[in-house]
Amino acid sequence: MSFDSTIHAKAVALTKLSYEMTAAAGSGHPTTAASLAHIVSVLMYQHMRYELANPGHPSSDRLVLSEGHAVPIVYAACADLGVAIGKDKASLRPMTREDAMTLRAMDSMIDGHPNPVEGFPFFDTATGSLGQGLSHAAGLGAAAKIDGLDKRIFCIIGDGESREGQIWEAMDFISDHNLCNVLPIFNCNVYAQSDKVAPGQTYEALAHKAEAFGFTPIIIDGHNPSQIADALSKHAQLQHDPQAHPVVIIARTQKGWGSASQQGMGHHGKPAEKADLAKAIEELEATGRALGASADTSLKIGMMSPAKPAAPTITAPLSLTEACKKFGWEKLLAGGSLPTRKAYGVALRALGHANSSVVALDADVKNSSHAEDFSKDPELASRFLECRIAEQNMYSVAVGLSAAGKVPFTSTFAKFVVRGYDQIEMGVNSGANFKVVGSHSGITLAADGPSQMSLPDIAWFRAFATVTNQKGNPAFYVLNPSDAFQAYALTMSMAKYDGPVYMRTMRPATEFLYGDTDKFEIGGPGFEVLNPGRDLLIVATGYMVHEANRVLDELDSHGIDATLVDLYSLPFDEEAILDLANENNGKVLTLEDNYGGGFGSAIADVVSASGDGFNVQQMHVKRIPKSGRTPDELLAYCGLSAKDIVKQALSLLELSPA
Amino acid sequence: MSFDSTIHAKAVALTKLSYEMTAAAGSGHPTTAASLAHIVSVLMYQHMRYELANPGHPSSDRLVLSEGHAVPIVYAACADLGVAIGKDKASLRPMTREDAMTLRAMDSMIDGHPNPVEGFPFFDTATGSLGQGLSHAAGLGAAAKIDGLDKRIFCIIGDGESREGQIWEAMDFISDHNLCNVLPIFNCNVYAQSDKVAPGQTYEALAHKAEAFGFTPIIIDGHNPSQIADALSKHAQLQHDPQAHPVVIIARTQKGWGSASQQGMGHHGKPAEKADLAKAIEELEATGRALGASADTSLKIGMMSPAKPAAPTITAPLSLTEACKKFGWEKLLAGGSLPTRKAYGVALRALGHANSSVVALDADVKNSSHAEDFSKDPELASRFLECRIAEQNMYSVAVGLSAAGKVPFTSTFAKFVVRGYDQIEMGVNSGANFKVVGSHSGITLAADGPSQMSLPDIAWFRAFATVTNQKGNPAFYVLNPSDAFQAYALTMSMAKYDGPVYMRTMRPATEFLYGDTDKFEIGGPGFEVLNPGRDLLIVATGYMVHEANRVLDELDSHGIDATLVDLYSLPFDEEAILDLANENNGKVLTLEDNYGGGFGSAIADVVSASGDGFNVQQMHVKRIPKSGRTPDELLAYCGLSAKDIVKQALSLLELSPA
Repeated sequence: MSFDSTIHAKAVALTKLSYEMTAAAGSGHPTTAASLAHIVSVLMYQHMRYELANPGHPSSDRLVLSEGHAVPIVYAACADLGVAIGKDKASLRPMTREDAMTLRAMDSMIDGHPNPVEGFPFFDTATGSLGQGLSHAAGLGAAAKIDGLDKRIFCIIGDGESREGQIWEAMDFISDHNLCNVLPIFNCNVYAQSDKVAPGQTYEALAHKAEAFGFTPIIIDGHNPSQIADALSKHAQLQHDPQAHPVVIIARTQKGWGSASQQGMGHHGKPAEKADLAKAIEELEATGRALGASADTSLKIGMMSPAKPAAPTITAPLSLTEACKKFGWEKLLAGGSLPTRKAYGVALRALGHANSSVVALDADVKNSSHAEDFSKDPELASRFLECRIAEQNMYSVAVGLSAAGKVPFTSTFAKFVVRGYDQIEMGVNSGANFKVVGSHSGITLAADGPSQMSLPDIAWFRAFATVTNQKGNPAFYVLNPSDAFQAYALTMSMAKYDGPVYMRTMRPATEFLYGDTDKFEIGGPGFEVLNPGRDLLIVATGYMVHEANRVLDELDSHGIDATLVDLYSLPFDEEAILDLANENNGKVLTLEDNYGGGFGSAIADVVSASGDGFNVQQMHVKRIPKSGRTPDELLAYCGLSAKDIVKQALSLLELSPA
Repeated sequence: MSFDSTIHAKAVALTKLSYEMTAAAGSGHPTTAASLAHIVSVLMYQHMRYELANPGHPSSDRLVLSEGHAVPIVYAACADLGVAIGKDKASLRPMTREDAMTLRAMDSMIDGHPNPVEGFPFFDTATGSLGQGLSHAAGLGAAAKIDGLDKRIFCIIGDGESREGQIWEAMDFISDHNLCNVLPIFNCNVYAQSDKVAPGQTYEALAHKAEAFGFTPIIIDGHNPSQIADALSKHAQLQHDPQAHPVVIIARTQKGWGSASQQGMGHHGKPAEKADLAKAIEELEATGRALGASADTSLKIGMMSPAKPAAPTITAPLSLTEACKKFGWEKLLAGGSLPTRKAYGVALRALGHANSSVVALDADVKNSSHAEDFSKDPELASRFLECRIAEQNMYSVAVGLSAAGKVPFTSTFAKFVVRGYDQIEMGVNSGANFKVVGSHSGITLAADGPSQMSLPDIAWFRAFATVTNQKGNPAFYVLNPSDAFQAYALTMSMAKYDGPVYMRTMRPATEFLYGDTDKFEIGGPGFEVLNPGRDLLIVATGYMVHEANRVLDELDSHGIDATLVDLYSLPFDEEAILDLANENNGKVLTLEDNYGGGFGSAIADVVSASGDGFNVQQMHVKRIPKSGRTPDELLAYCGLSAKDIVKQALSLLELSPA
C-alpha cells in the first residue's frame, strides 16, 4: 500500500485506455502515450493544482503537451478523473470513458491532437506541430508573473521533438526572463518516428544542453512514481528561490512502456489492433502486477491558489493627436508625413496606458518597429517582453499570453514574420487573440535588399482571411495602412477586436491622408474612397496609395477621371467594391508592393465570382527585387512607378499615350 | 615586420573602406563589419584556398557570412584583392574600389546583403535573414563529403543571431553527420541591434552551448591575428582526426573595432556620415598606428586542392511500371490505386539511380513521405541526409547542397514545410535548384486534425509563381498531382528542371487516372482535360479531381455536360484555360482541398484579367477543420463533398436540384 503502487495502477489503467481509444479511432500514438503514463499520473492526480469542473480556471496550474501526439494519455486521465469538457463554459460536463472512445471522430471534442477550441479547455493551446509548446508555456508563465499569480506551468517535450530549434529559443527565453514557474519535462523515450533519436538528444545530451542554456537539470526514471514526485516537489521549492536557476526534468522513459510487443522501432503512431491490442493489454496488466500496481492509496489533486488575476482596466483610447500631446511628441505630426511604424509606436504606448491587458513583444528590432515607445515607458516596461532574434518563440509566447487573457502585440520586420508562420497558424487553431505587426514591409525598404523585404506575406495571410474561425470571424484580418492616422486607428481597433490580426507598417514616411476623426475599424468596409471618378477604379494599398495619388492629375490630362480607393483590409466589403467597379465601367487597376496572390487577387476573386465582365489588371511585384538606394528606384525596377501606372491605366482603357 | 602587423594594416584598410562604402550608400552596417576586420583578413588573405579569378570554383574553400549585414567587410576585401564579380562566368572581372562604392545602388552587383545571383559569385547563397548561413555551410560541407573534396567551409555567425533556433538545429546536424569540414565562427561583439546580447549569448555561454552540442570550442581574441590563424590551423588539423569532434571558434570581438566613437549602443546599422565619418576613420588609423599596423609581410592565399567533383552521371529515367519491376514492387500497381506519396518514393529511388546529383533529405518522416525508398537502397544511402525534426535546417542545407551542384529533394509533411518558408525564400533568392515535397497534404489526412494539415500552402507558394526569378522562370513551380503516374512523371521532371519546385503528395490512395505514356512536364500546359463537355468547366486539383470525377454522372442526370480539368501546376497555360471556359459558356467551378488564395484564385486572376465576363465559383476549405476519421467526413465537414459539388454546380448554372 503506497503512493508508488497506486500510481502504477493508474499508469496501467490510463495506458490501457490509450490503446483502446486509438484502436477505436484506427490511428493515434499509444506507445508515446505509454511512455508518459507515470508522469501524467503523478501530475494530474496529485501534483497539479486545478479544478476538475473548471479546468481552464486562470489560477490553476497548467499542462502544455508540446508533443501533442501523446495526447491519448491525457485524455485517458481526464476521462478517468471526469475533467470537464465542452465548447463553452455553459456546456461543460465531466469527460467520460465513452468520450475517450470517440477520439478523432468528426463530431467528437476529443481531437487527434490537443485542440482547446473543439471543446477541451484543460489545454490552453493547440499543439501537435512540434516544438511550440514550451514557448506557449513560457507565455503562460510570463502572464502569471505579470499578474502575480502563484501557478506553475508544466510542459512535456519529446526527445525527438527537442531537435526543433524553437525548443532552444524557448529555453533561452525562459532563462532570460527567469520564468521559474515554467517546468520543462523532457520525455526521453529514445525513439522518434523513423529512427532512434540522434546522439544529440539522448537524456545525457539533453541534460548537458539544458545546463548550457542556464537550467538546472534533474534526471529521473520517468516510470518511477517517487522520483517523479520528488522532482516535481524540488521544482516547487526551487521556483521561489531567487538564487536558483530554472529547473528542467529529464525523464528517462520507455516508448510502449509496459507492453514488450509494442517496444522498439516500428511502433510510432500505430494503434495496436485486434490480436495485437489484446496482447499489448495483457502484457501491460502483467507489468502492473509485477510492479505491485494497486489503487490502494488515495491521491488528491492540489488546491489552487485563491488569488485570481485582476480584471483588466480599460479606458477610452486617445486620438493620435492627443497621444502625441500627452507624450510630448507633437513634433511627429508637424511635418505632414510620418512612417506608419512610428504611428504604431505611439498607438502601442497609448494602448499600454488605456488597456492593462496589452503586452508588447519584439524580436530585437524595437528601435525600428517602434515597439520601444512602449518598452521605454517606465509604467509599461514590465509588460514588455524582449524576445531577441528568435521569432518562432515570440509568436508562440504570444499565443500563451493570449490563453492567459493578455492581448499581445508582437512586432518585427514583416520579412521575419514568416519565421513564425507555423506558430502563427497554431495560434489561429488555438483560438488565440494575438496581433502580428510587420514593419519595413514591401519593396520600399529598398537599400537592404530582398533578404529584408516581405513579399509573399499578403498571399499567405490572405489565405486565412478566406476562412472562418470557430467564432465565425475571418481566421485573420490583414491590414495594410497607408498613413499614420489610419495605422493609429487600426492599432486601436486591433486591441478591441478579439482575434488574430496582421498589420504591415512601412519604413519610409508617407504623407497624411486622414485625420483623427476618420474612422477605421476591423470589420468595417475595409477601404476608403480617396477620389471619386467614373472611368477607372484604382484599388491601391499601403505605399501604392501614394503612388496612385501622384498620377491622378496626369490621368486627368489623358481624360481619365479615376476613382482612387485605399484598400487597407482583407476581407473587405465586396459588394461595395463591385458597385464602385460598376460605376467605373468595370475597369479596375490594382496596385500593391508585394508578390501576387494578395490584394489584387482578392479583388479578382470577387469580380470573377460576380460574372459581371469587369476587367481587373493587377500591378504587383513580378520579379525578385534587389537593393536600390531609394523607394522610387525600387518601384521603377519592379514596374510600379507612377509612369508604369499611367501606362497600364491607358492600356486598360485602350487609350494611347499622349 | 610580422604577420600580425600586416593583418592589422589590412583590418584598418578594410574597415575604412567599409565606412566609406556605407556612407556612400547612406545605409549599411559598418560597425558590425569592423568587428570582423581581422577574421576576414586572416581568412581571405591567407587561410582560405580559392582563386581570385574564379571565386565560385567548386574545389575552393567557401565562406558563408551568416550574419549577412556584416558584408561590407567582405566586399572591402574583395575590392582590395580583385576577387572576380559578374553575373555569369563570361563577364567575370576583378572587383574594384569603385565597385565597392556602388554598394546598394540599383544597378550595382554589390547588394545590401550577400546575394550571389546579382553578380557576386564569391558567395554561394543569399543571407541576411539571420540564422540560416550555418545550415547553408552544412549543405556545402555535406556535398564536399559526398564528392570526396578536400575543402573547408567557414561560416561566420553573429552572437545576437545565435539566438535563432536554426543555428542550434544546424549545430546538431553538423554533429550528427560529423561534418568536420564546416567551421562555425561565432563573432561575439556583444551588441545586437536594440540591446546587448542576452546572458545566454556571451562568449562563455556560447562556448558552453557549443560543447553541449558536441563541438570543441576554441576561444580567441578576434582582433589578434595570430590567435585567429592558430585557431584556423587547429581546425585544419583536427578536421581529419577521426577521434576529434567538430570544432567551433568563439571569437571575442568589438563592434566598431578601432573607432571609439562608433562603439557601444546606438551604432547598429548606421553609417557614419560627414564629421562622424572623418572622426571614425581618424580613430581607426590611430588604432592602426598604435598596433604597429604595417603591410610589410606578404600574404598568400592558399592553393586549392586540384581534385574536382566528378561530372554527374545521368541516364534515361524509367517509367513507373519499369521502376516498380526493377525494384520488385509490381504489387504497388496491381490494385488500380496508390497514394501519390508512394509514387514519389519509387520515383525518388529511380532518380537516385538515374542521376548521381540527386540527394534526398527528410525530417524524421521518411517512412511516411516515402523518402525511405531512397534511404534504404544501399547504393543510395550515402546520398541520403536524415535531418531529424528540424525543418528550417533541412531547407537551408538543401540550398547549400544546390550551391555545390547537387539536386536536393526534401520531404516532410506538407504542414511542416511552413517551418522553413523563410529558408525556402532565401533559397529562391539564392538562385538555388532545390525541390520541396510535402506529403499528407490537405484535409484528407483527416484523423490527425488541423495541426497536421497543410492549408495555406498553395497560397504562399503561388505568390512565387506570380514572379520571375533571375533566370526568367517562375520563382516557384507548384505541383499538385492527382494520381501516382502523374506524381511519378512530375518527380522525374523536377529533377530535369533547374529551379525550385514544390510538390504536394497525399496520404490516401487515389485511383489511377493516367499511365506510363502520359506526359507531365514542368513548363507544359499544367493541366489535363479528363472529360470534355460544354456546359460547365470544373477545374479540380489533387484529391478533388477524384471527387469531381465521382459527380460527372450525377451532373449528367441534371442535363449538365461538364468538362473536367485536372489542374496540377501553377503556373499553367492561361490562354488554354480561357478557351475551355469559353467553350463551357464561361461557367467555371474550381475545387481544391486547402484554404483560398490558391488554384481557384489563380483561375480568378486569369478570368478577371480577360474581361470576358466568365463566372468563377471557387470551392475550397472555408472553415478551420478538425479531426475526423475518414477523408469523406472531412470533405463533408468542409463543404467539399460530392453532394456539395453538385449543389454548387446547379447553383452556378441556375438550375434547381432535381
